[in-house]
Amino acid sequence: MDPRVREHAQILADAVDLGEGDDLIIKTEPVADDLLVAVYEIAGDRGANPVAVRTNRSGRAIRGYLRAADEADVEFETPGHEQALVEEADCHIIIRANENVTELSDVDGDVNTEYDKAHSPILDERLSDPWTLTQHPTPANAQLAEMSTAAYENFVYDAMLKDWDEQREFQSNMVDILNDGEEVRIVSGDTTDVTMSIAGNIAINDTNKHNIPGGEVFTAPVPESVEGEVLFDKPVYQRGQEVLDARLAFEDGEVVDHGASKNEDVLTSILETDPGARRLGELGIGMNRDIDRFTYNMLFDEKMGDTVHMAVGRAYEANVGEDNEQNESAQHVDMIVDMSEDSRIEVDGEVVQRNGTFRFEDGFEE
Amino acid sequence: MDPRVREHAQILADAVDLGEGDDLIIKTEPVADDLLVAVYEIAGDRGANPVAVRTNRSGRAIRGYLRAADEADVEFETPGHEQALVEEADCHIIIRANENVTELSDVDGDVNTEYDKAHSPILDERLSDPWTLTQHPTPANAQLAEMSTAAYENFVYDAMLKDWDEQREFQSNMVDILNDGEEVRIVSGDTTDVTMSIAGNIAINDTNKHNIPGGEVFTAPVPESVEGEVLFDKPVYQRGQEVLDARLAFEDGEVVDHGASKNEDVLTSILETDPGARRLGELGIGMNRDIDRFTYNMLFDEKMGDTVHMAVGRAYEANVGEDNEQNESAQHVDMIVDMSEDSRIEVDGEVVQRNGTFRFEDGFEE
Repeated sequence: MDPRVREHAQILADAVDLGEGDDLIIKTEPVADDLLVAVYEIAGDRGANPVAVRTNRSGRAIRGYLRAADEADVEFETPGHEQALVEEADCHIIIRANENVTELSDVDGDVNTEYDKAHSPILDERLSDPWTLTQHPTPANAQLAEMSTAAYENFVYDAMLKDWDEQREFQSNMVDILNDGEEVRIVSGDTTDVTMSIAGNIAINDTNKHNIPGGEVFTAPVPESVEGEVLFDKPVYQRGQEVLDARLAFEDGEVVDHGASKNEDVLTSILETDPGARRLGELGIGMNRDIDRFTYNMLFDEKMGDTVHMAVGRAYEANVGEDNEQNESAQHVDMIVDMSEDSRIEVDGEVVQRNGTFRFEDGFEE
Repeated sequence: MDPRVREHAQILADAVDLGEGDDLIIKTEPVADDLLVAVYEIAGDRGANPVAVRTNRSGRAIRGYLRAADEADVEFETPGHEQALVEEADCHIIIRANENVTELSDVDGDVNTEYDKAHSPILDERLSDPWTLTQHPTPANAQLAEMSTAAYENFVYDAMLKDWDEQREFQSNMVDILNDGEEVRIVSGDTTDVTMSIAGNIAINDTNKHNIPGGEVFTAPVPESVEGEVLFDKPVYQRGQEVLDARLAFEDGEVVDHGASKNEDVLTSILETDPGARRLGELGIGMNRDIDRFTYNMLFDEKMGDTVHMAVGRAYEANVGEDNEQNESAQHVDMIVDMSEDSRIEVDGEVVQRNGTFRFEDGFEE
């Protein structure tokens, strides 16, 4: 086994603080078996109790299930047994790994959305425990990134297995700025100019906790405060389909207009899930510069240096200040804006990043 | 996909009477993915809710877990989250499928036994619901059977996809004999001569319910009634290890002496699990003549024509008459006696099978 797989597993176990007697759920796919083995080894060593469950998010099985359920006009419900499993669990490691990233491309988007909605109470349960989400580098994920498998493995492990003390320090500068600020404005070219309040909400320094790799600073906008337009110039990759040039226009926090140059219907279906799916749940700043290319994988793309991302849908509870509203939704879909050129982030009117360089770095142009 | 896989899945779904809203657990391994896809398709069609969980009985992950837990001197406990999952489930499909049948061969037998004991309440829960156990034909299982993968697939599907009405009729003759009888004697050569009471217990006609393939008639001995000696002349294959010529001697229903010509320690470890593991929980008569060879797989071997099998450990509740005792154990290990030559089954002193031919068949010698 590649020794980096065991290092990866160690990071995952530490992210959920896995300890003796902990009832652990590992959501995984067969193609990530090496990583599963490594996690099981650590679970054994620490006296935890692992149960490995299919993600039901990718793969031929869930594709067959959803198509058959669509054909039979099934109304999805929240499965009581899966809910009980998650309720009784202490922590959760979710491993993404694809054999074919386009496996769900012939499943109707609405069916997928209905399935997600029915499973939303289970997601709520999971998010109330320690959890972490990661990627195992498979040939199909390498293909999506337009890379060889070996080069993709290097990319993935470089992004994960790094000096996290140094990275934490770097990111903390941005955490402080956001936590001291009240209004954020994101401007890029003449297509993106959006403002939002983050007053009273909590910026989090993401260094290998809920996402492996970490590498972002993220907070929640006050839902009704978002105003303006955003063009997400990096592709949004959902359910094996690529939404290009996704565009959202906000008034009073709500998406009042949207469009895309490709697969607009996928975007529409996401936005129509529930009222919360038409509002922002997250604002994130990508700061992991080992992620130096777009790989059609949000887990990496959103951490990429010189980007910001916004998610429609659910806000993370940890980001929401006690007097503020938490945006609720069955969705949480991140979308990215490239900030490397002709772009700036302002906090309370002060420019804190220009063309990808932060105020607290050398080379920042006032 | 081989069309026989979908036929197989249909039998599994029917065996647990899978219906709308049923919370289904599928215990499976990656190498059985074709069958999982087919079961998911049926679950979607019927509006059931499938969750796919690793069996934790084979494979590299559980091997790594058990070895690490052994090294760390972990005391196993019943995982609350897995128990909750099984408690809330409505039905269970267990798919055996190996990538390497000897994967657990370097796990200490006692550790495996302790793990099984800790999971015994979960097994109890599962057995109280509709459940079925089957095999997916993998290259490793073909190798164990000393067959090509294609020939093994034919063997597996021939044993499963047959005229079950006819088979049911054939087996019902033996069910009637056992349900009308009180004492069974099994004699084979000069190495096996064992008697047991089955008075008040219930013989079951196994035609594709708990085991796919079916093909046996089975009942439970009255635990303290078993007397005599048995040489199991077919190998007992447990945890990747082959116990040869397992021999048990019974007094007042308890194993008072045992031996084997190979891997006797594996047998010892099974018998020492708990008091119930030293008593018989099952007597079965193999009647599926499409199973015409020994394949080192009890699910098939025990159904082989011209054999009987006895299991140490847990008795099935359905076999136990209301005034009789149910043998309890964390184990249920079947062992086979070849009855094709120099052998007979007697019920209440009357020979009902001689050298593999039943009293109710042509060619029976009085």
